[in-house]
Amino acid sequence: MSQNLENYAESLAVDARKAGRLLALTSGRQRYDALLAIAEALGREADAIIAANAKDLVAAEENKLTAAMLDRLRLDAGRIAKMAKAVREVAEQPDPVGEIISGWMRPNGLRIEKRRVPIGVVAIIYEARPNVTSDAAALCLKSGNACILRGGKESFHSNMAIAAIIADSLRQSGLPAAAVQIVNTTDRQLVPLLLRQEENIDLVIPRGGESLIRAVVEQSRIPVIKHYTGNCHVYVDAGCPPELAEQVVLNAKCQRPGVCNAAETILFHQEAADRLVPAIGRKLIEAGVEVRGCPRTLKLLSGARTADEKDWYTEYLDLIVAVRVVDSLEQAVEHINQYGSHHTDAICTLDVRAADRFVAAVDSGNVMVNCSTRFSDGGEYGLGAEIGISTDKLHARGPMGAGDLTTYKWVVSGYGQVRQ
Amino acid sequence: MSQNLENYAESLAVDARKAGRLLALTSGRQRYDALLAIAEALGREADAIIAANAKDLVAAEENKLTAAMLDRLRLDAGRIAKMAKAVREVAEQPDPVGEIISGWMRPNGLRIEKRRVPIGVVAIIYEARPNVTSDAAALCLKSGNACILRGGKESFHSNMAIAAIIADSLRQSGLPAAAVQIVNTTDRQLVPLLLRQEENIDLVIPRGGESLIRAVVEQSRIPVIKHYTGNCHVYVDAGCPPELAEQVVLNAKCQRPGVCNAAETILFHQEAADRLVPAIGRKLIEAGVEVRGCPRTLKLLSGARTADEKDWYTEYLDLIVAVRVVDSLEQAVEHINQYGSHHTDAICTLDVRAADRFVAAVDSGNVMVNCSTRFSDGGEYGLGAEIGISTDKLHARGPMGAGDLTTYKWVVSGYGQVRQ
Repeated sequence: MSQNLENYAESLAVDARKAGRLLALTSGRQRYDALLAIAEALGREADAIIAANAKDLVAAEENKLTAAMLDRLRLDAGRIAKMAKAVREVAEQPDPVGEIISGWMRPNGLRIEKRRVPIGVVAIIYEARPNVTSDAAALCLKSGNACILRGGKESFHSNMAIAAIIADSLRQSGLPAAAVQIVNTTDRQLVPLLLRQEENIDLVIPRGGESLIRAVVEQSRIPVIKHYTGNCHVYVDAGCPPELAEQVVLNAKCQRPGVCNAAETILFHQEAADRLVPAIGRKLIEAGVEVRGCPRTLKLLSGARTADEKDWYTEYLDLIVAVRVVDSLEQAVEHINQYGSHHTDAICTLDVRAADRFVAAVDSGNVMVNCSTRFSDGGEYGLGAEIGISTDKLHARGPMGAGDLTTYKWVVSGYGQVRQ
Repeated sequence: MSQNLENYAESLAVDARKAGRLLALTSGRQRYDALLAIAEALGREADAIIAANAKDLVAAEENKLTAAMLDRLRLDAGRIAKMAKAVREVAEQPDPVGEIISGWMRPNGLRIEKRRVPIGVVAIIYEARPNVTSDAAALCLKSGNACILRGGKESFHSNMAIAAIIADSLRQSGLPAAAVQIVNTTDRQLVPLLLRQEENIDLVIPRGGESLIRAVVEQSRIPVIKHYTGNCHVYVDAGCPPELAEQVVLNAKCQRPGVCNAAETILFHQEAADRLVPAIGRKLIEAGVEVRGCPRTLKLLSGARTADEKDWYTEYLDLIVAVRVVDSLEQAVEHINQYGSHHTDAICTLDVRAADRFVAAVDSGNVMVNCSTRFSDGGEYGLGAEIGISTDKLHARGPMGAGDLTTYKWVVSGYGQVRQ
């Protein structure tokens, strides 16, 4: 069995490499047509997907998944139509492949070009939601990459049904079916074996909880781009007008608390604290938020609990917020750089020096000035669908679209030049 | 001792992070001035460096290093002047930091900017040549990164002398001395400990032999950009004129055989082989090159030995070349993608369809059309000094300059926007 798994991991990688080499030679039009065929087939075959999804739902109920998890797993005609629509939207994006990023002539007549090309083979390891399967496949195909998708065991049957539809559409479009391979086993031992296929897999993107991501980083010989969830902050500067602070803080915390770009800690400059902590704190409590404050916060706000060191590190993903009064902008920056997850952090201020200083000093992928952290999102930036929000600094940082699934090659053209 | 080493690894990383945070706030002018101060001090303190280098040379002779290695290790006034000149050249490059890579307005009035910033902390693990110490320090400082440099034990005393000079210059320029830290122990156990400081080191660049690089990849929790040496090819297409093929092949193989962008295998299209293998093969042999050929090559060229499977994988870095006759351009591409190291590969052809097909299909960081592989180099491309030639596909591919030691952050500016 272990030998079988090893062979399976290797064959996934080898087949993906072959498919990736063919994809690198396709035109944008061919990939566009294949994406439309996939979108169309998802709609046409919705009943088959729903039937497969029903098996996952039965298993999920037996395994006593929470109502929230069941909801994320469930597919109906409306959700499948949305999946198809997302694939169509990816198809309609401009083709990232083939762009001449830059180019120039050298004195010896050589023409130097930096040309955008697909990365090759991308493996994505993710949990739960079956719509990730079609989204990830579409983004990889758009950017000319073969992909290996390893979804969660909860959505296994749904994923297999989606896999069959995608493979069919690829074949009908004249593209290799191995351009999109969805792992057909739930055996957890496959993942470490995949992570050793460094000859034939170029990039691994883990999407899910922190323990999944840490395990992938620990085991992988292949470069990994991490998508940690966000411990995001809003810092309210000394002279910030109350309306500005209030609307940003409340939106960042309350508009959708369960997602990675929601705020988890609010920092108030001490000169703003007397004015703003009581009013904004009360609004938060009225909105159903549990407030955990530093000692100075507790003096200004009744109904808050004491925050401890652990709170500053915590992504609640819930209606809970940590609040701290800081001495200065510098202390706010230090707090964010120490406790934060380098995802998204905001400042509320009308002082341009403070804004510039905050933007330069906060070591995060997304820095917001006078707007909600909730805007940290590929769609909100106008990038189209995203494969996730990178919390890494290399290759891609922040929202990652199809263009971030490309690399470049140097093309040097001459007519017999040699080096002296 | 092991506990001491652990503490040392951690303190290197923590101090580098602090220095990196300060560097992120410096102006290009401050970093420029510091680089000029370092260049000036290297010249002024040449005697101290030469004295330290003498200790390394004594140890090297005791350890029976080869003459070539001794030569690479030796520093004299001329070589130190070159090191200083290289630092000055890096200083004179445009500042990569602060560029607005792109930006736009959203319908809701938010301004989105993708702004180039330093990566943070870069660790470079390298061997032998002491000039890498000042080159790497200069490129990291230019791009606003703190660096941790771990050189080879052979150049330990030289590196320590260079370290003292750089630290002094940084202090006098008002920059943190920990912006450039050179590891002060030769204990090999330090490297794996450094590779676990993922909280405070953002990137590792190993430069050296394949076994060093593999060990780093295996142990690192930090993203690694690999710089493997090159198994480079020249493919001579069916109708290629003899002069073009000859000048490119001879230059690629013979001009400097010991470096990574020299050619190791020559592939001839079968329709060109009768015309070109005897003539070019003879010229190679006359130039002192040992030729190892496939069966078809041996029939066309006397004086060649038989190549075996291992030869196709080998980077000789010497006056040896493997020669194979292939059926088609497609077979040449397949050979290169299978046996090559994705570094630099060339085609010689006047047929634009063949050139385009080769450029698209060869999965290498540098693809040359009608010119020598030896041009694969940051200086030859006009990029200035390079930290190396990446054989990876993520973040940076091919010659890596100061600009490749940066990342970006998204800066989103508004006036109270919230998400609905």
